[in-house]
Amino acid sequence: MKEKDLLARLGKLRTKSGTVETPLLFPVINPSIQPVSPNRLKEEFGFEAIITNAYILKKRYLNQPIEMGLHKFLGYDGAVMTDSGAYQILIYGGVEVDQAEIVNYQEGIGSDIATILDIPTGWKVTKNQASLTVEETLRRAKDFFKIKTRDDILWVGPVQGGRHLDLVTKSALEIGRLPFQIHALGSPTEVMESYRFDVLVDMILTAKKNLPIERPLHLFGAGHPIMFSLAVALGCDLFDSAAYALYAREKRYMTENGTWRLSELDYFPCQCPKCSRETPKNVLDKSAKEQEIFLAEHNLYACSGELRRIKQAIRDGRLWEYVEIRVHSHPALLTAFRKLKEHKDLLEKHNPTVKSSGLFFSDSEGLSRPEVTHYRERITKRYSHPKGSRILLLAPQTYNKPFHKASEFQKIQQVLKRLESSMLHKIHVCFYAAPFGVIPLELDEVYPLSQHDNATPVEDATIRYVASEVANLIMRSNYEAVTLIHDPQNWSDQVKNACKKSCLTKGIKFSHLVLKEDSTKNILTRLEMILRKNLSE
Amino acid sequence: MKEKDLLARLGKLRTKSGTVETPLLFPVINPSIQPVSPNRLKEEFGFEAIITNAYILKKRYLNQPIEMGLHKFLGYDGAVMTDSGAYQILIYGGVEVDQAEIVNYQEGIGSDIATILDIPTGWKVTKNQASLTVEETLRRAKDFFKIKTRDDILWVGPVQGGRHLDLVTKSALEIGRLPFQIHALGSPTEVMESYRFDVLVDMILTAKKNLPIERPLHLFGAGHPIMFSLAVALGCDLFDSAAYALYAREKRYMTENGTWRLSELDYFPCQCPKCSRETPKNVLDKSAKEQEIFLAEHNLYACSGELRRIKQAIRDGRLWEYVEIRVHSHPALLTAFRKLKEHKDLLEKHNPTVKSSGLFFSDSEGLSRPEVTHYRERITKRYSHPKGSRILLLAPQTYNKPFHKASEFQKIQQVLKRLESSMLHKIHVCFYAAPFGVIPLELDEVYPLSQHDNATPVEDATIRYVASEVANLIMRSNYEAVTLIHDPQNWSDQVKNACKKSCLTKGIKFSHLVLKEDSTKNILTRLEMILRKNLSE
Repeated sequence: MKEKDLLARLGKLRTKSGTVETPLLFPVINPSIQPVSPNRLKEEFGFEAIITNAYILKKRYLNQPIEMGLHKFLGYDGAVMTDSGAYQILIYGGVEVDQAEIVNYQEGIGSDIATILDIPTGWKVTKNQASLTVEETLRRAKDFFKIKTRDDILWVGPVQGGRHLDLVTKSALEIGRLPFQIHALGSPTEVMESYRFDVLVDMILTAKKNLPIERPLHLFGAGHPIMFSLAVALGCDLFDSAAYALYAREKRYMTENGTWRLSELDYFPCQCPKCSRETPKNVLDKSAKEQEIFLAEHNLYACSGELRRIKQAIRDGRLWEYVEIRVHSHPALLTAFRKLKEHKDLLEKHNPTVKSSGLFFSDSEGLSRPEVTHYRERITKRYSHPKGSRILLLAPQTYNKPFHKASEFQKIQQVLKRLESSMLHKIHVCFYAAPFGVIPLELDEVYPLSQHDNATPVEDATIRYVASEVANLIMRSNYEAVTLIHDPQNWSDQVKNACKKSCLTKGIKFSHLVLKEDSTKNILTRLEMILRKNLSE
Repeated sequence: MKEKDLLARLGKLRTKSGTVETPLLFPVINPSIQPVSPNRLKEEFGFEAIITNAYILKKRYLNQPIEMGLHKFLGYDGAVMTDSGAYQILIYGGVEVDQAEIVNYQEGIGSDIATILDIPTGWKVTKNQASLTVEETLRRAKDFFKIKTRDDILWVGPVQGGRHLDLVTKSALEIGRLPFQIHALGSPTEVMESYRFDVLVDMILTAKKNLPIERPLHLFGAGHPIMFSLAVALGCDLFDSAAYALYAREKRYMTENGTWRLSELDYFPCQCPKCSRETPKNVLDKSAKEQEIFLAEHNLYACSGELRRIKQAIRDGRLWEYVEIRVHSHPALLTAFRKLKEHKDLLEKHNPTVKSSGLFFSDSEGLSRPEVTHYRERITKRYSHPKGSRILLLAPQTYNKPFHKASEFQKIQQVLKRLESSMLHKIHVCFYAAPFGVIPLELDEVYPLSQHDNATPVEDATIRYVASEVANLIMRSNYEAVTLIHDPQNWSDQVKNACKKSCLTKGIKFSHLVLKEDSTKNILTRLEMILRKNLSE
């Protein structure tokens, strides 16, 4: 593993045909109707791995792939993964092989990564039905280890349970105890087709939480670039895409922003080698087969470009920022992203504490970021205000950071300097600031408290969060008085009201000054008066 | 003009060297150090127009471009625009030509689009200084018409004033009265370099509002794809980019999501023909000159790809959605986007009323959309509830739309059907819904009230808006009673409190039922009871 960000990681996966880098997309190969040859997928498009279906190979080509070897049969020298026919069980209700046959076949053809014959749960099933698929998959997973004979193949142990999260938990826990090298989350295709990305977030994170975290996780059947970044951020390492070819056959054009029919396009919203050389009008004049190949190739470029953007974002420590851009492509993705609020602790647990870059905060979704969770934990559980400080002086965030160096604070600093030093150390200055809440002056250069940019004005939900963090600080500390420099223009009355209420509850004195641009001098005079009065009491 | 969306338009601009399509980007050509030849810009990269600097041409090449003709001199047969040296005034404080000379020179070389010698205002100047630049620019603009001799050149009349919006207003109004074919907004470069996109929004819209709307507007010196979509949405039609080459010289890599140094890249976050064939590591091994050319070409692909995405978004009627994705690339862009709240009416004035597609609403910024403004105007000024209706029944939005066909409403409908028809017509059903506020049942299929998707949960600012719209309806109508089906899980107490307060003010009866998943039957029984009681009073 090279780098981590959120639950995502840049990693290496060693297969017998070479080492591949994750996150990784396996284009699905259908040997009988393949718009782009496996060889070109590697040489021209840079795909280091592909996936094909062992069940279909067996049915159509019998022993030929065994005799030739899978790689020679496909004309591909990268890593080849095979699926087992489980998808066909989901679609057609059953397959004409048993697990031993399909495991032996995959060993026979020499897959690099292979899959047991699991039973997909599907989407619209009752809990009882779902439970049966989980039990049968687990039974087969255990059986499998008695069947397998080769040790150089990476085997995939799928997690089932569908939208029934308790079943997903059970499935993940039990299959995680078996020595599979890779896990997979089954049947999200239908979840995605109905745009229930919110359900998918819960499914993925439930699986992640209960599987051995170091093993790669494959999200089966998730082949649209619109959701790669979110899934990677949640810890999915492997993807397969039949969509690039299926969409092409239906004359559909995919991008990380969404899908178009070719006939809807006046301009190609993409700069890939195909789209930089052609216009939709020209492509529509070509034969159906040429259109299909054009679209398949564009779709592949769209997928590989998106994966590179995601990898670079992980490398930059900016995956949150990237996902935030991407989820604005569809309200259903943003709805799913907002679900991360419920999974803050899991995100925080795995996210690296210090990154190479500053953070961008745009919307109140940023409150779910691991950095915010981490800081809250730290300030709540491991922080107490400087010994001897009796008065909390709360100042609003400044335009530039760190706060204590900003010009707005320099003015307040002048007032403080006028106080005798015996008084000064009784005053504790904290800033209230989006999105971290309350930041003691002595911490304001600690990463990332000054290393971030925020969109303004501060949103309601963030104001509310900051107000509650200020109140929490007052409640758990033993200040004797609180003085607030109140900035109604940017913070409404919420911070003030929260302070006032906590002071009332604690029975301590609360004073406030209202920040107005035109009367800085008066404010400073009043501030000095209040502080001196509080200190003399 | 072909299509419109927000203040953006797809248009055609006729020049003497051919018709070009807007929005249009002119790559800046520096004949002495040009990384990509003008001919390749057209043939390989598809740029229909370029811009070069007449002042520099005159200084360096004297009469040669006049003798050869500009197009032959540059080796380019598309449209060529020339700037006048105004940028050099801004940077170096002055130029060694007067306006007559540079106007004559541009006529002499045969520019297709040419610029008078305006005086750029710049960024950090006092209002007095700014005012002088506006006055002098206007004086020269008037003088110009006495100097010019050719009628086949499109002349640009620049608007100055910088961040002083009253000066921008004056400048735009006065120059708009002169018969220029094109206008330009001067000196936004420094505004953009300091990331004050919020100031830029005000500058652009102030210019737009006061210029003849049909004339194309050029945003001078705005060459980074990160802000094209926002500027186009605000009505900028023309851009020039020296950045593609300047950034390349500094080893910087630009995308619609931001800028990287080449040395920071492990992966190319792009699928352009350059980035699909190389890795950053390979490019870093090349010579400095090769690196520069690679980056210049990538930067050009990044710009042209982004312009195609924008054009397709205009064509789809989805420019708002596209800008919303893009502004999440940087908090300063989102801050600027939030400024549109102050310009709702201008956006509404020019936006087409009906589009070919449904709308996506993600964040509360969506409340500034022209469709929301338009609906609010209509419902406030031109709507009154059905004659004879006495009781307002408010139901929450449903999962599927139109509301009156959704299963949640069907249950309520059953209660209504149990009432005698003489009672029924006294009840007026409205839905409270994000983001449009309050939607009378009889209107719920009118575009776009059912043709939109929203991210959930509904954000605070949107809840507040909906609550205020519900209150407004009650205040301006003459219902005798209001019954609210209250959904505290999704709407907190705000809608309820707003209803209650308005009813109290109006002195009419208010009742409410609390929606809970487990007691639908009780709710319906109570609903019938309340309605019958209200109707019998």
